[in-house]
This record gives sequence, C-alpha cells and structure tokens, in this order.
Amino acid sequence: MIPTITAFEQSPDRGQGLARDMPVRWALEEVGQPYHVRLVSFSAMKETAHRALQPFGQIPTYEEGDLTLFESGAIVFHIAEHHAGLLPNDANDRARAITWMFAALSTVEPVIVQREISMYLERDKVWHEERLLIVEDRIRSRLDDLSAWLGDREWLDGAFSAGDLLMVKVLRRLGGSGILDNYPNLTAYAARGEARPAFKRAFDAQLAVFTGKSSSQLQ
Amino acid sequence: MIPTITAFEQSPDRGQGLARDMPVRWALEEVGQPYHVRLVSFSAMKETAHRALQPFGQIPTYEEGDLTLFESGAIVFHIAEHHAGLLPNDANDRARAITWMFAALSTVEPVIVQREISMYLERDKVWHEERLLIVEDRIRSRLDDLSAWLGDREWLDGAFSAGDLLMVKVLRRLGGSGILDNYPNLTAYAARGEARPAFKRAFDAQLAVFTGKSSSQLQ
Repeated sequence: MIPTITAFEQSPDRGQGLARDMPVRWALEEVGQPYHVRLVSFSAMKETAHRALQPFGQIPTYEEGDLTLFESGAIVFHIAEHHAGLLPNDANDRARAITWMFAALSTVEPVIVQREISMYLERDKVWHEERLLIVEDRIRSRLDDLSAWLGDREWLDGAFSAGDLLMVKVLRRLGGSGILDNYPNLTAYAARGEARPAFKRAFDAQLAVFTGKSSSQLQ
Repeated sequence: MIPTITAFEQSPDRGQGLARDMPVRWALEEVGQPYHVRLVSFSAMKETAHRALQPFGQIPTYEEGDLTLFESGAIVFHIAEHHAGLLPNDANDRARAITWMFAALSTVEPVIVQREISMYLERDKVWHEERLLIVEDRIRSRLDDLSAWLGDREWLDGAFSAGDLLMVKVLRRLGGSGILDNYPNLTAYAARGEARPAFKRAFDAQLAVFTGKSSSQLQ
C-alpha cells in the first residue's frame, strides 16, 4: 500500500527542505518506498478536517490504509520499523539508534528552534540581540557535546540510522547561521547526510513543490 | 537482569518529581520491573565517565548488561517494548501510542521548558515579563490543541500508554504556573496519571532521595 503524507502547499523556507515533511520523505527514499503527497495550505492546516489527522494543525501526517500518524519522529520510526535500512538488526544497536532519534528531537532540536523563533518573531524587540546571544550560547553548549561525542565517527553510533537522519535534519536548520562553522566534524557529518542519494531525491521532491515543477503527486 | 538508572544526587525541584528520571521510574513501576538507582552529583554529570554514558552530561541513563541508553523518551520506549503494559498489542494502536510519545517530547514539552528557562535564567532581565507573556501564549496554543483533542477521553488514544505517561509528565512541569487551571480536562487527565499506583511508587522513590529517606538503592 502506498502511503500518503502531507506537506506545505507553499514552502515557508523557499525550498530549503527544512520543513518536517523532509525527514519523512528522506526516510521513505532511504527504504525505497514510493509515496503520495497531499499539499495543504496554511489555512487548511488549522481546520477541523486536518486537525482530525494532526491535532496541532501542522504537517506532516502519514496515512496508510486505516492508520493515521503525525509527528515526523514517529513517522520516521514507523517507516524504520517496517522496512530494512534505518535501524540495526542487533537489539542493543537498535535501541541505541532509537536513543539518538530522541536525542535529535528532544535535546538538540528545541534549542535550535528557539533561534528561529527569536529570528522570526522577536526581531522587532529592543532585547532581540541580547536574547539571541543567550539562545546561541545554549545551541553551542549542545553542539559542543554532540561534536565531542561524534569525534571522528562517520555516524553517531555504528552504521547510518534513523538517528542520524533526524540529527542531520536538525543540524540543517542551522544553515546560514554560521554557528555550525566552528564544528568541522559536525559540518562534515551533516554534509555526509546530504550527500546520500536518498536525501537528494527527497530534497528535489520538496524543492519541486516550491518551484512548481512537481509534475506528479507520486514520488 | 536488574537495570540501573541514574538520577540527581540533589533534587533540583525539591522532590516534586519533575526531573527526567521520573518518567523512567514510572515506566519501570508500571511494568513491575525492579531497578537500581545510582545518584550522580551535578559536577560528576559533566565529567568524562558520565559523558561516556550520556554525551550531553544529563540524567537519566539506563544500564542493563552491556546496553547503555540515555534520553528518557528512548528509555521509556525500551521498557515499553520489552514488557507488557505500556504499548498496545494492535500494530496500528501501537504506532499511534508512539506518535503521542513523540508529540509529548517534541511538540508540547519544548514550549513548557522555555517557560522554565525564562523563570530561572532570564528573571533579572528588564524584558523578562514581556517575554514571559509570549512564552505563555505559545504554551496556551499547544494546550488549546491538546485539550481539544482530548475532549472527554480518558487517555489520549485508547488505553493508558507510554504516550500518556510522557504527556502527563510534561504537563506536570506546569504545576504552580496556574496555566493548566484553564483546561479542566487536561487537569483531570494529569490527575488521573498521578493517581496511578505506579506513579505514586515512582514519585515516593524519587522523593525519598530528596528527604534522605532512601534506605536502599533497589526500588
């Protein structure tokens, strides 16, 4: 059965692939699962029909027969659980990969999202610059730890996993901030993620929505 | 094999059970799994030995034979996967419960943590009050959605699950803020979680660390 995901009808990041449909597309591409995309407008996202699928009025959702999921982390996990390639077979290695999924979304992403909120919603405040410094210090604290852990590893814990997929997508949100430049191993790690053929296919598919070149809903 | 978790040697919340060892204790109690606790000081948490277990220098960790995990969400999931009682047997129901685990940690908790950061670290700023209002608006936006979804349901999606466990622990972080008072169904939902015998046992165990009445490390 071919699942259907939702994505923004109008890309808020102008095709940079930072929205939360991107990790889901990437995961589907990694495992070779075709998918349909239903584009949703910002206003339709907040309406009852969409909220029945996504209580917080966001994207993505994932529909597969009578199963409806939301939360990009949960969707990536569902894909990883039902296809080979995103979670190790060894039970302990698998549990470690899942740990890194939660670390990406629960420990690293929130401090990065704070910077985006600060840039978009608090830019007109007289205290914007002062607070931005605080926020960026918190980001660096997390990146210091992550960089120390990564060292010269290729991926976070053994082979590429759903944990790396989510961590790379989180680090990509720092693109353009210059913050990642001080961490050569994290920069190289994110680049390794972006160099994966599945990432490129997912990126091109979401870019095509922005450029209007999406000729088919089946990717 | 009896697992060992780590917890704060000195409770930063004076025994309110808001630290991240609490959901792990709660999950272990729900499934009837005894556990050892190793208490860690704030300084020891930042040292190399602990960072080898927890790269971000935090608690909890989970050690079971040659498996070491961190991230409370991942540990709760590991416990739920290996014992009955925290995830439904039906595959679709199980995927939905996992969705709510991610929703608790990735969508609801970050906005609540922002309020704590604002209260503890930005209280001396002249812009503290102005920013606190913004932060609390964001929290209410999430709670509006969560409350609308919950309606008169007992739990988020069918029977009590690891998704509820994590959502209740996240909502408890609002205790004392008064924000939850405007959401009678969420208040009642959190109270139902706190009324579970397993919650009470976990709560008492972490409280005993604070009061110094913890007579044994095996709980």
